[in-house]
Amino acid sequence: MLKGNMLIAHGGGPTPVINSSLLGAVREAKRHGEIEAIYGARFGAEGILAGDLIDLGAVPEEQLDLLARTPASAIGSCRRKLTDADYPAVLECFQKFNIRYFFYNGGNDSMDTCNKVYQLACQSGYELRVIGIPKTIDNDLAVTDHCPGFGSAAKYAAVSALELAQDAASLPIHVVVMELMGRNAGWITAASALFAHLMPCEHLVYLPETDFDKEEFLAAVREKWARGRGLLVTVSEGIHYAGGAPVADSGIVDGFGHKVPGGAAQTLSDMIMAETGIKSRSEKPGLLGRVSVALMSQVDREEAEVAGATAVRSAVEGKTGYMVGFQTRREGGYHSETTLVPLAEVANAEKTFPLEWITPGGVTDAFRDYCMPLIGDYDSRFVSLR
Amino acid sequence: MLKGNMLIAHGGGPTPVINSSLLGAVREAKRHGEIEAIYGARFGAEGILAGDLIDLGAVPEEQLDLLARTPASAIGSCRRKLTDADYPAVLECFQKFNIRYFFYNGGNDSMDTCNKVYQLACQSGYELRVIGIPKTIDNDLAVTDHCPGFGSAAKYAAVSALELAQDAASLPIHVVVMELMGRNAGWITAASALFAHLMPCEHLVYLPETDFDKEEFLAAVREKWARGRGLLVTVSEGIHYAGGAPVADSGIVDGFGHKVPGGAAQTLSDMIMAETGIKSRSEKPGLLGRVSVALMSQVDREEAEVAGATAVRSAVEGKTGYMVGFQTRREGGYHSETTLVPLAEVANAEKTFPLEWITPGGVTDAFRDYCMPLIGDYDSRFVSLR
Repeated sequence: MLKGNMLIAHGGGPTPVINSSLLGAVREAKRHGEIEAIYGARFGAEGILAGDLIDLGAVPEEQLDLLARTPASAIGSCRRKLTDADYPAVLECFQKFNIRYFFYNGGNDSMDTCNKVYQLACQSGYELRVIGIPKTIDNDLAVTDHCPGFGSAAKYAAVSALELAQDAASLPIHVVVMELMGRNAGWITAASALFAHLMPCEHLVYLPETDFDKEEFLAAVREKWARGRGLLVTVSEGIHYAGGAPVADSGIVDGFGHKVPGGAAQTLSDMIMAETGIKSRSEKPGLLGRVSVALMSQVDREEAEVAGATAVRSAVEGKTGYMVGFQTRREGGYHSETTLVPLAEVANAEKTFPLEWITPGGVTDAFRDYCMPLIGDYDSRFVSLR
Repeated sequence: MLKGNMLIAHGGGPTPVINSSLLGAVREAKRHGEIEAIYGARFGAEGILAGDLIDLGAVPEEQLDLLARTPASAIGSCRRKLTDADYPAVLECFQKFNIRYFFYNGGNDSMDTCNKVYQLACQSGYELRVIGIPKTIDNDLAVTDHCPGFGSAAKYAAVSALELAQDAASLPIHVVVMELMGRNAGWITAASALFAHLMPCEHLVYLPETDFDKEEFLAAVREKWARGRGLLVTVSEGIHYAGGAPVADSGIVDGFGHKVPGGAAQTLSDMIMAETGIKSRSEKPGLLGRVSVALMSQVDREEAEVAGATAVRSAVEGKTGYMVGFQTRREGGYHSETTLVPLAEVANAEKTFPLEWITPGGVTDAFRDYCMPLIGDYDSRFVSLR
């Protein structure tokens, strides 16, 4: 039995349900006598390096309850990527606060950091249990069926597309282009096609997993527009031409060294107007796609809470160096359960959208079968009398 | 008692609740023996000119029920502005279908058209009752306290800003700039400040009713950003410099002869990065702000239904040449009731946002007192442990 304190930290961009993982972890920790103080790092790695911790054990229960409905990170996150030079300060923080249980809740970069912290503890002989809690709207973490955060981002994309399509069909005076998040992985944008069978207008979808072809795109726009039902185009922010040049380039590089894409929807909208003469407009909900409480997937929220609780329970049981993953069964009703995946297998391995699920301007029903259970209940009944 | 058929048409951009006005009108019409067939114009003025009408009396009740939760226009709308040359065709359609009750559901331009149809009927001796049903997310119709559609657009703006602020505060690595609809009227953007007292980050708001001053803006951004809490900027698409030059100009003119603004949020975001060196990003939900079912205001929806029903009942009672308006009382709890406003008073008169409700980078509590009842119930409880 390892007695000591626990620290949980958030890394990278938040999701609508990352606070549910926090809730699950804190509630589970309170059940185990091994865990004494429960700390949260204020603003992620920055808080660890500064020794700036929040006493989560002192938070009243009614405030913890609100975590389940609060989007973004209630303890703060950051995009700082820890370097080798930072690890002595990390260890110093752990020693100072007697941290024996460490949970890092994040995506690819965070799982890489989590793995390094795990190795650091092993090498330095500091007794520490390290478990990663998966989080990313992008769904690009390897070795898990899906990732907490994605179900809600997918629901936002699916519902937004279906609602926008009502507008595009009822006032078909312009092509409507919507940009969705996902620089390298098209999962969220693919989800915009979940209700393809209910779309009252034509719909084209472009993911970053395939090269964008301008002439094919314009030909598809002309052909779909000519049907007179209106047209919605949904597109990942990271779409690129053959060779990798982005369709829209902001020229900016973020804190993790990733290129920040420019306005893909605006670029395509301008392209449509210039090349076809058809009027077009663009929408870019951007961060709104990862903060919507109203479109939070309840399945996603519950799984996020389970992921947090599982991480803590596993660590108390002696596990270390793992990330919590999900394995699922979809036949005969959706069923998911947690697994433990070695951090070394998940760190920095990116799961892109399967090419066999992509059709010209769309996605296959195999993707819909995969994704639909993740968005949870949604009433898609709209009426058209047109 | 005037016996005959009824025609209802939609004009301009839809709202989340315009179909509720349709529902109210159709249900009310069914109660009155004076009204025989109930027609809807397919795609607004286009349907009238083409004699392309939908038999709304034949729509099953369970489909009518769905109108209450369907955004955009279930019968279709258009941006075609009727000209003097069109009115003979309008009269021809009315005569052909024995239309004796005409309801036009729209904004400023539509009320102008509605007024012209009313005058045409008077001049030509064709017995016709004409009532306008107000509709605009922009809230810029004169002589009514507010307009159906606005409450829902305001709720979308208020909730989106509050949710985005959670993200901006929990990962304060960039200024977040959100653009909202409203070319000439700042009502929607002002609503983004409804929850100012709950904002976890700094917030700046810019409306098109005042001139945008670049140096003042950049100074405010620097000052707010330096506080270290994160910063959200919300801005109307139509903001302009002194003299009227738009901050962002697309160079495009729409079907009503209105200039289409460019990307104001993107422009400000680029400006912040170029001039202050602070990282910034932009979001532009655009049309999503007028189609969200989840953020539909129930107060707005119910008033929209009442507006449709009131229009029909008033016409049956002999009224013609009016628009349905709302007068309200806010002291001691919100109460609203319908009024009838002469079309001549409302047509083409734009109600801009009161200058006395604008503060530097914000709005006053007087606006909040005005607007809060219109968005209806909303659970704003979020938790921060940062």
